[in-house]
Amino acid sequence: MSLAAVKPKFSRIALIGKVRSPEIAGSLRELAELLGKRGCTVLEAKDASADLAVVVGGDGSLLAAARELVGRKVPVVGVNLGRLGFMTDIGHENMREGIGAILDGQYTIEERALLDAEIFRGAKSQLRTIALNEAVVGKGAQGRLIEFALSIDGEFVYRLRGDGVIVATPTGSTAYALSAQGPILHPAVPALALVPLNPHTLSARPVSVSDRSVIEITVVSSLDARAYFDGIALADMAEGDRLVLKRSADVVRFVHPPGYRYFATLREKLRWSEALDKQRSRE
Amino acid sequence: MSLAAVKPKFSRIALIGKVRSPEIAGSLRELAELLGKRGCTVLEAKDASADLAVVVGGDGSLLAAARELVGRKVPVVGVNLGRLGFMTDIGHENMREGIGAILDGQYTIEERALLDAEIFRGAKSQLRTIALNEAVVGKGAQGRLIEFALSIDGEFVYRLRGDGVIVATPTGSTAYALSAQGPILHPAVPALALVPLNPHTLSARPVSVSDRSVIEITVVSSLDARAYFDGIALADMAEGDRLVLKRSADVVRFVHPPGYRYFATLREKLRWSEALDKQRSRE
Amino acid sequence: MSLAAVKPKFSRIALIGKVRSPEIAGSLRELAELLGKRGCTVLEAKDASADLAVVVGGDGSLLAAARELVGRKVPVVGVNLGRLGFMTDIGHENMREGIGAILDGQYTIEERALLDAEIFRGAKSQLRTIALNEAVVGKGAQGRLIEFALSIDGEFVYRLRGDGVIVATPTGSTAYALSAQGPILHPAVPALALVPLNPHTLSARPVSVSDRSVIEITVVSSLDARAYFDGIALADMAEGDRLVLKRSADVVRFVHPPGYRYFATLREKLRWSEALDKQRSRE
Amino acid sequence: MSLAAVKPKFSRIALIGKVRSPEIAGSLRELAELLGKRGCTVLEAKDASADLAVVVGGDGSLLAAARELVGRKVPVVGVNLGRLGFMTDIGHENMREGIGAILDGQYTIEERALLDAEIFRGAKSQLRTIALNEAVVGKGAQGRLIEFALSIDGEFVYRLRGDGVIVATPTGSTAYALSAQGPILHPAVPALALVPLNPHTLSARPVSVSDRSVIEITVVSSLDARAYFDGIALADMAEGDRLVLKRSADVVRFVHPPGYRYFATLREKLRWSEALDKQRSRE
Repeated sequence: MSLAAVKPKFSRIALIGKVRSPEIAGSLRELAELLGKRGCTVLEAKDASADLAVVVGGDGSLLAAARELVGRKVPVVGVNLGRLGFMTDIGHENMREGIGAILDGQYTIEERALLDAEIFRGAKSQLRTIALNEAVVGKGAQGRLIEFALSIDGEFVYRLRGDGVIVATPTGSTAYALSAQGPILHPAVPALALVPLNPHTLSARPVSVSDRSVIEITVVSSLDARAYFDGIALADMAEGDRLVLKRSADVVRFVHPPGYRYFATLREKLRWSEALDKQRSRE
Repeated sequence: MSLAAVKPKFSRIALIGKVRSPEIAGSLRELAELLGKRGCTVLEAKDASADLAVVVGGDGSLLAAARELVGRKVPVVGVNLGRLGFMTDIGHENMREGIGAILDGQYTIEERALLDAEIFRGAKSQLRTIALNEAVVGKGAQGRLIEFALSIDGEFVYRLRGDGVIVATPTGSTAYALSAQGPILHPAVPALALVPLNPHTLSARPVSVSDRSVIEITVVSSLDARAYFDGIALADMAEGDRLVLKRSADVVRFVHPPGYRYFATLREKLRWSEALDKQRSRE
Repeated sequence: MSLAAVKPKFSRIALIGKVRSPEIAGSLRELAELLGKRGCTVLEAKDASADLAVVVGGDGSLLAAARELVGRKVPVVGVNLGRLGFMTDIGHENMREGIGAILDGQYTIEERALLDAEIFRGAKSQLRTIALNEAVVGKGAQGRLIEFALSIDGEFVYRLRGDGVIVATPTGSTAYALSAQGPILHPAVPALALVPLNPHTLSARPVSVSDRSVIEITVVSSLDARAYFDGIALADMAEGDRLVLKRSADVVRFVHPPGYRYFATLREKLRWSEALDKQRSRE
Repeated sequence: MSLAAVKPKFSRIALIGKVRSPEIAGSLRELAELLGKRGCTVLEAKDASADLAVVVGGDGSLLAAARELVGRKVPVVGVNLGRLGFMTDIGHENMREGIGAILDGQYTIEERALLDAEIFRGAKSQLRTIALNEAVVGKGAQGRLIEFALSIDGEFVYRLRGDGVIVATPTGSTAYALSAQGPILHPAVPALALVPLNPHTLSARPVSVSDRSVIEITVVSSLDARAYFDGIALADMAEGDRLVLKRSADVVRFVHPPGYRYFATLREKLRWSEALDKQRSRE
């Protein structure tokens, strides 16, 4: 997290949200009015000239927007109308105050790592994409277990059978990977988490490796393996197909209002804050 | 892992091992003879002028030796008479070949991070030590559960009740922390793993943080908490006592013979290499 | 859970609670008054002639009372002044209503299994006790890892090194064993859960066995092992000492007011009820 | 496990195995010859008059055969040409001896519970089948997470989002459910294990319930949920569809040669037997 004394001000703001939802559409109108009063230009989501994107919705909406904005290097901030998300850390009740502070130049920018992912069949590239949360080699349409081999920087790590494997960024370490018993990686840790999905080998465990590593996952045998990026199924993989992952040269930049704390979010989302009372009553 | 083209040669070698064990004593004599023929000077464990230490024994012996040698910056290599360890990666059957290669300048040096640990009661330091594997705040003589609070760089993370908490280096991530469901951290990841021990809060999960963090663990309530470093109980902790952990300025330097591979060791120690056969027979 | 059409009424009621706590003392006075009005006789905790015991406090207090009352076959009900417990399922705000209903004969009786535990050194019995939640062979005063062997009905199961092993009843399966990754056993399942504590062997997993089994845990090597029953350290164990566990002929009988639901308690205690909102915001 | 003093002798033996595999075909011929010499009648797999079925292959082959034989109440024994399985406990090297002993009447019969599974859309049954290992409500062709509600005997247990849920018999508790962190249930425990698959709710844990329970899993929301029985995808499930599971009135009967030990198999399959050496070298 970088915290500069003086922050550049944002003036061209893209507003993003599912306008079919009356609640979201209302908040977007409210935001547009606020931005107009502050002398900002309100832009469409697709406008390439924005210097800030405000997303109204859940973590899923922010994730989708962030994936689209990567190439344009537009920083992004999320407003959540329900319970706060891991990434959407301004609530509707604090929207005016939070967005207002950001427009005043009171904010922090946090850079989050991305995965650069490419699938090869033999020497030929089949697909290239990015992932902010995670890449998964998992089961395909038939739902049969798969077998895969994993290597790091050319060194063989393991061959496993199971439901697949997740490679998660620190951002993704609190998403799907966490449900699969993966470790939480603080965003300042330059690492990627390798998390096997229901592996047959009971001693298989999550491994965190440097984010300067090149990770290669080869489908060894499968009736139908498939690659997922941020939860989206993008490619079926045949035996011998390889998914090659490394940290992207791009980053996603999250804008946080004053007072943002990583562990406070974690504590609230995972209900750690309530731990004490709970423990007392279990005595 | 740094791999220089030309390596300085070792000439003053400390030999370390439990001489009460006839097997170890025999191997030490064999090594002394080998070193003598190579023109090296064989030194006592305590001699401060050594430029290499060879430990014969298990990972526990290497751990103890490494803790003692830290201040003197002597690199260390381990010979295991039984099954290879995570740290003792030369077997007796390869001892002459492995040590010979190292004396020929064919080796790699791997630096492993250490924890710098200090316990405070109020403002007063009670104890300062190091840990290569892990620091633990756990249960003391009475075996009653403890409650502690943990903060990172002054930011509150959580307050938990349970059997305690482990803070592990990458080296320690394959030791006690792994038994407690902690994540494996490759030694090249500049991180520390925080692993709660049987926490009452079921959503508490291991968290990896940057090794530039300052971690503070405060005993909130306990009939008897205790701090352990590399498995050694060094201090009882009362309510309000704080254990402050950060990465040490020192490192431990492991010397590896040619052919050392981190993941090969992991695979063998955790029996991943046998995964395929096992899986086949479970079909 | 047995639910008879007509229930015997309770008339001799023991009131139990930490009278040093003004809050608990107040509730006990309130209860005594209520019971007096209903024509019941209020008894001291130690009075052997009670036909019902009402405990005011947390699960820990109920556990302690239940252990004491086992021999006298007195059913027990718990009133929790804070957040409800797994076993103390009447809140203070429902105390008059809940206890009133029970006195009216509107209640269910649920029998919970107990462990009968005996420690042997050679052929000689060292200690015999019971446990409602769990028996543990764990680390003693020095906090060093232990090694133990476990057998079921004379059949060898495994030999493990680690922090110890828990043998939990269904009642105990939601207490310490749950923190150690043990499975939840519904009280109607006639089984005991064997849960290793931070075992070195990564493929060691919890095993549930019939509660008609005889479980024997032998200390193979240890500097100081210790046996705990319901969290209370009762005996140090030396190498070769054996803890023999089987289901007790006695049971603990919990009295529940109308409306008690096992899974509702579980859901509330483990915060499952809030799962849906949480998941939505993680999308 | 029932062990009668005098056992009925088998005379009409069905031989089952993938004859396309030369290795299996060879073993089947060897068995046919052995059976012929003993005066037994060798039958086709489909012959309804068999009083014993011998399956040559892995656990998967035995599972498939057992599913087919359920209605005909034919006991089954497995010969594994590779590493022994959980269910195929005679190795090729012991085939003559093991099958010979069984033909001599020296064997035990072990009854294993089955699931009776039925899927309903509204009041209409869509499918009815059995499962020896497990029933799963999981992700379908699109691989998107699902949300489901689970109830036991009409009592609501939880509503979860994730990859799905496994309901395993004791037999299945060492198969897929074990990879998903489920508990091992000894076959003598009359219980079923409910194991959530990568649930979003981190405090969701495996629960074991009585095998006299009726378990109902309702798809709450999903783009494509699917029901799997013993690993076979049998039905797509839409929102509102219900899978109702209870213990089947039928059982599978495994025939074991003398010397069979449940925990010995477990220890070998999960590599617990090697625990001691491994632990020593990790010291």
